[in-house]
Amino acid sequence: MTTITQDNIETARNLLSQLTLDEKIGMIHGAGLFRTEGVPRLGIPSWKMSDGPRGVRAEVHNDSWAPLYNTRDLVTYLPSGSAVASTWNRGLAYATGKVLGEETRGRGKDVILGPSINIKRSPLCGRNFEYMSEDPVLTAEQGVQYIKGVQESDVAACAKHYAANSQETDRLEVDESISERALREIYLPAFESAVRDAGTLTVMGAYNLVNGKQCCESSELLDDILRDEWGFKGAVISDWSAVKRTQASAEVGLDVEMAVTPNFDEYYFANPLKRAIEAGEVSEADVDAKVVRILSVMDALHMLGKNSNARHSGSFASIEHAQTALDIARQAVVLLKNDKSLLPLDVRGFDRMLVIGANADRTHSNGGGSAVIKALHEITPILGLNGLIGGNVDIEYLPGYLAKQVTQDSSWQEESLENSTGDANSDEAQAKQLREEAVTRAKEYAQAGLPVIFVGGLDHDHDLEGRDRETMDLPYGQDALIEALLDVAPDMVVTMVAGSPVTMRWADRVHALVWSWYAGSEGGTALAEVLVGRENPSGHLPESFPIALEDSPAHAVGTFGLAGHVDYTEDIYVGYRYYETRNIPVRFCFGHGLSYTSYDYSALSVQRIDDKVRVAFTIKNTGDRAGYAVPQVYLGLEGTGEDRPVKELKGFDKVLLQPGEIRQVTIDMASHKALRYWSNERDAFALAPQAQVFVGESVQDIRLNGRVE
Amino acid sequence: MTTITQDNIETARNLLSQLTLDEKIGMIHGAGLFRTEGVPRLGIPSWKMSDGPRGVRAEVHNDSWAPLYNTRDLVTYLPSGSAVASTWNRGLAYATGKVLGEETRGRGKDVILGPSINIKRSPLCGRNFEYMSEDPVLTAEQGVQYIKGVQESDVAACAKHYAANSQETDRLEVDESISERALREIYLPAFESAVRDAGTLTVMGAYNLVNGKQCCESSELLDDILRDEWGFKGAVISDWSAVKRTQASAEVGLDVEMAVTPNFDEYYFANPLKRAIEAGEVSEADVDAKVVRILSVMDALHMLGKNSNARHSGSFASIEHAQTALDIARQAVVLLKNDKSLLPLDVRGFDRMLVIGANADRTHSNGGGSAVIKALHEITPILGLNGLIGGNVDIEYLPGYLAKQVTQDSSWQEESLENSTGDANSDEAQAKQLREEAVTRAKEYAQAGLPVIFVGGLDHDHDLEGRDRETMDLPYGQDALIEALLDVAPDMVVTMVAGSPVTMRWADRVHALVWSWYAGSEGGTALAEVLVGRENPSGHLPESFPIALEDSPAHAVGTFGLAGHVDYTEDIYVGYRYYETRNIPVRFCFGHGLSYTSYDYSALSVQRIDDKVRVAFTIKNTGDRAGYAVPQVYLGLEGTGEDRPVKELKGFDKVLLQPGEIRQVTIDMASHKALRYWSNERDAFALAPQAQVFVGESVQDIRLNGRVE
Repeated sequence: MTTITQDNIETARNLLSQLTLDEKIGMIHGAGLFRTEGVPRLGIPSWKMSDGPRGVRAEVHNDSWAPLYNTRDLVTYLPSGSAVASTWNRGLAYATGKVLGEETRGRGKDVILGPSINIKRSPLCGRNFEYMSEDPVLTAEQGVQYIKGVQESDVAACAKHYAANSQETDRLEVDESISERALREIYLPAFESAVRDAGTLTVMGAYNLVNGKQCCESSELLDDILRDEWGFKGAVISDWSAVKRTQASAEVGLDVEMAVTPNFDEYYFANPLKRAIEAGEVSEADVDAKVVRILSVMDALHMLGKNSNARHSGSFASIEHAQTALDIARQAVVLLKNDKSLLPLDVRGFDRMLVIGANADRTHSNGGGSAVIKALHEITPILGLNGLIGGNVDIEYLPGYLAKQVTQDSSWQEESLENSTGDANSDEAQAKQLREEAVTRAKEYAQAGLPVIFVGGLDHDHDLEGRDRETMDLPYGQDALIEALLDVAPDMVVTMVAGSPVTMRWADRVHALVWSWYAGSEGGTALAEVLVGRENPSGHLPESFPIALEDSPAHAVGTFGLAGHVDYTEDIYVGYRYYETRNIPVRFCFGHGLSYTSYDYSALSVQRIDDKVRVAFTIKNTGDRAGYAVPQVYLGLEGTGEDRPVKELKGFDKVLLQPGEIRQVTIDMASHKALRYWSNERDAFALAPQAQVFVGESVQDIRLNGRVE
Repeated sequence: MTTITQDNIETARNLLSQLTLDEKIGMIHGAGLFRTEGVPRLGIPSWKMSDGPRGVRAEVHNDSWAPLYNTRDLVTYLPSGSAVASTWNRGLAYATGKVLGEETRGRGKDVILGPSINIKRSPLCGRNFEYMSEDPVLTAEQGVQYIKGVQESDVAACAKHYAANSQETDRLEVDESISERALREIYLPAFESAVRDAGTLTVMGAYNLVNGKQCCESSELLDDILRDEWGFKGAVISDWSAVKRTQASAEVGLDVEMAVTPNFDEYYFANPLKRAIEAGEVSEADVDAKVVRILSVMDALHMLGKNSNARHSGSFASIEHAQTALDIARQAVVLLKNDKSLLPLDVRGFDRMLVIGANADRTHSNGGGSAVIKALHEITPILGLNGLIGGNVDIEYLPGYLAKQVTQDSSWQEESLENSTGDANSDEAQAKQLREEAVTRAKEYAQAGLPVIFVGGLDHDHDLEGRDRETMDLPYGQDALIEALLDVAPDMVVTMVAGSPVTMRWADRVHALVWSWYAGSEGGTALAEVLVGRENPSGHLPESFPIALEDSPAHAVGTFGLAGHVDYTEDIYVGYRYYETRNIPVRFCFGHGLSYTSYDYSALSVQRIDDKVRVAFTIKNTGDRAGYAVPQVYLGLEGTGEDRPVKELKGFDKVLLQPGEIRQVTIDMASHKALRYWSNERDAFALAPQAQVFVGESVQDIRLNGRVE
């Protein structure tokens, strides 16, 4: 694990003593859109950053967002955060980070702006696709591995966005009222683990305000919690243009101001800060502290002095990285329904099939906001299917619905659907034609006993930084289309490619339903492999899919996506903590994911050993093919004297089992994590004296029950 | 090896008896630009073809050359024929074919239009990049493996263009006078091997005339030699629009007429043929013979009846195929010079380097004519370098020269440079700027002891189907630029990316010179690996690089690239057969290729064992890194009473040797191949009674001498 050592700090202090104020100032603010100024005379290089978190972003000019058009910055497109979480495989989260770190270093960068570990408070948040989960433990566990992987390559991860960047609406100004309990139990733990367990070298200060304080001005968040309580020794980088005032940010532990504008000398931490120091309004010691932290990180990354000869060199856009992207994508696909065992398709049984849905033929790397990727390649679902079975199966493709692409490659700033051009009437006529054509052909295929596959969902005109969705319904009239298709092809396989839940009002009528995230360069390959049975699906939902938007907690309380002020009145009852405790039925529950085989759970034992809660049990693969079971351990804390969720995820594993294989699985959880809760009464963490233990394949599919005292 | 069996022929004959004349007619001409008509009532599918030979071409409409814009036909871009030959590795030629066959089948095709096994008669031929070599044995050996690989996947290879399609100028009309000896020894052997040794299932009839006869009307070529002498049982497909008359082609063994126009019913083999049969001008038996041959091939490909359930399904655009493309490209790179051991670059020794030359940043898959590829990805040299060492080395790139791209993606028909737009004056001004910038920067880098790499050469505005080059000089003023750069950076590494020889008048001044062909999806990776020493180069030239165009035999006799009529008066003295026999110095000789290690040859023994000539010797790797030696066996036939080349390649191998390793190498050559020559006197093949034996690392770098009696 890469960490900041006392040596790093001493090197930093030695250098500090040789720096002029101007040089220090140069190091703490952007001198380019993705770099700070270096000090060549002392061998201090410019500090180079890149947008992540699903690949290293394409080069832009130093002072403009216009891309550099060349063939030099094509990279591997890694599965998005939700997909990584969906694998429930720590090794693959590490592998994601490892490839990303390799590519970041290969591209000559020092900091990659990821992972995105905010908690998904609402299905509508525009950046949900980047985020991992509604659950702090799953987010923390996968985030830790991801960061460790990144930092293997002498580059810094940047855990973002600290804290509670849960919505895009009014993100630069919104003030979120969040209880200390919700902050401590839901919104902060992944950051805490990023610092304590992964040693993240940088953290990004968020745009928004929390409890009246700008995150980038919050002494409580940046000094008290992050540094004093968690022991963070690295640097805090502002989100781009998240610093709003010179003195307020200079006096807290916000180390680097970055922004979206090219007037670098007028950044708050540039000339204005220098003037404030000269006027005695800010102490130079505050700047020194920042510079020491930045130099400490640089030294830990082997950027300084003779250490730099030993710096890892990295690599990008390699075949090996594409293979890792495929490995991750394979385990990210979630089989939501398979009622009639329609899946996997037996490709020997037919020579034609019909694929409907524009998402089958659409790439997603080229959108989303700052997560945009200039991918060396991206296998779409239709390419994946053709590549795998197109030789003997004639695959007809029809878009079915009209999905005009609005956001463009390399877009960064907030996009507007108003940019959409075109005549609404002619669009409607075209959409109608597409729908009728699809329904007619689907009927013919279904009557001939041939497979019909729908590939729809969302895209980065909807899962998009800077704007929350307005509805959980599918866009482009897909709901009506799917229903019309099911009327004529009731065995149609429905596949959703998306980064956030959609309502799926037709879900009860579908027998085979597959969920694919934005799953990277090889996402279409992985999806195709699952559909035809080359891969046994093993992804499990890292978030609940509610039946209707108003069922979800933030919308039930009516405070998501407001401008100005948002009150997190649902408190800790986010996601399944809410649905399970309030008995609200959901479409698909947290942790849900089917397999082409089946698993029996038995022989639960729960022990307290030293400082651990040990949960052990046996899993048997009772089907006829190999597969990954995803055992999940939930606790229901008791005896706290406060209201608690009935179940909270505390541990999980991913276990490969051959047909008939029986394995003993042991899940150890640190007691201080598993049993802790934030006591409103004491305004501090406390440990619950006892808890119910639930072990299952989802939060609802509980196979074993026990207790811990 | 896939071959046509008696069973296949019987199945074909049974089906024939059930076919109407219209159905037969439908099967022997294009019903789409890349397919014939099937007979659904009898389970005979449409026969689908695709342009090769370096990948499966993107889909076009059935009746128009406009591409289908989708994500479904992206494929692996395989190294071009010259690159495959340059590996001198039969296993990699097989691997090329294997991937191509997999992809062809994966794309649902039945026939891939390749390999291109014409002999390179001149450096200027526009399709040289597709062709393998100036030597018939190297072409035959690599072509055989390629075809075997392709046909593993239940698709037919199509050996093209039969015969002697050695120039693009006036290719539809040119009449080539070629002596029987030159045909038999130079231009036909690769086709003979394709039939006899590889069992190619189809052959393509060329555009041109040979000795006054259209190739697609030549009973001598199509009936006497191909079928009677070589035993070919497959189908001959015309080049697109190579059929010019109904009766003349119908009466010879030309089986399928394809063309570039969409008036399918008016093809010579469509309604005109039907009318000719009805008028008694053509016998229906001629059509029957064609149909039987076509159906025989289809049956061999498992396209008919219940066999089709067992048909190979294929796959395309996979990671595995990219890996194979890389494996091939790695062994295709030729190290031409390394005087001062400037290569490999020690990347630990510098933190900046300069790359000059537009070919560093240009893709080549998207051009060339019918060999155009819609590549899933293509690693350019600059991307390859950045991907490999860009983390710790800041690679500055400057185009250096102005290379406007004229031919476009998916172009097929002859392109014209006249399409080029733009103001010549402003182009000249821009070129001057680029040149000055490059020279200035090169000087700075050289003075600082930092590497300067030039990446130039040709592109598919020059290596292009349908047009021969006008000069062997480099385009875009590269020669003057390179000289100006060498003035300021004498240790500049020069890399050429091209499909044909260029004059390189500056070659004596360059210390490090690397040749890369159009080397496929991972060509830039392979080149970068060679430059930085991750890969030890092992490619050897499959053709001679003359000093000046007029030195080359076809140009010395002055008959290359003429319209109307071309006399191959150089006879069998093509390539090194000419230079070696006439003592004409060349820039780089046939078979030349350096390594980062060195090899000692010793202990030659030559024996005649049964029907073989066995040449055995020992190679030792005398350097300090592993590498591939490429031992080449040349014979100088003696006692024939006729003029003979002093050396002719008869055998070769590629041998991996660890540092210090000594290996015994045995090369067996069938006597009837090694010693045979076409006797002008007898007008037949004869065997030479004796021969000199030369073993070496190129046609000039002879290490061992012997004799065979």
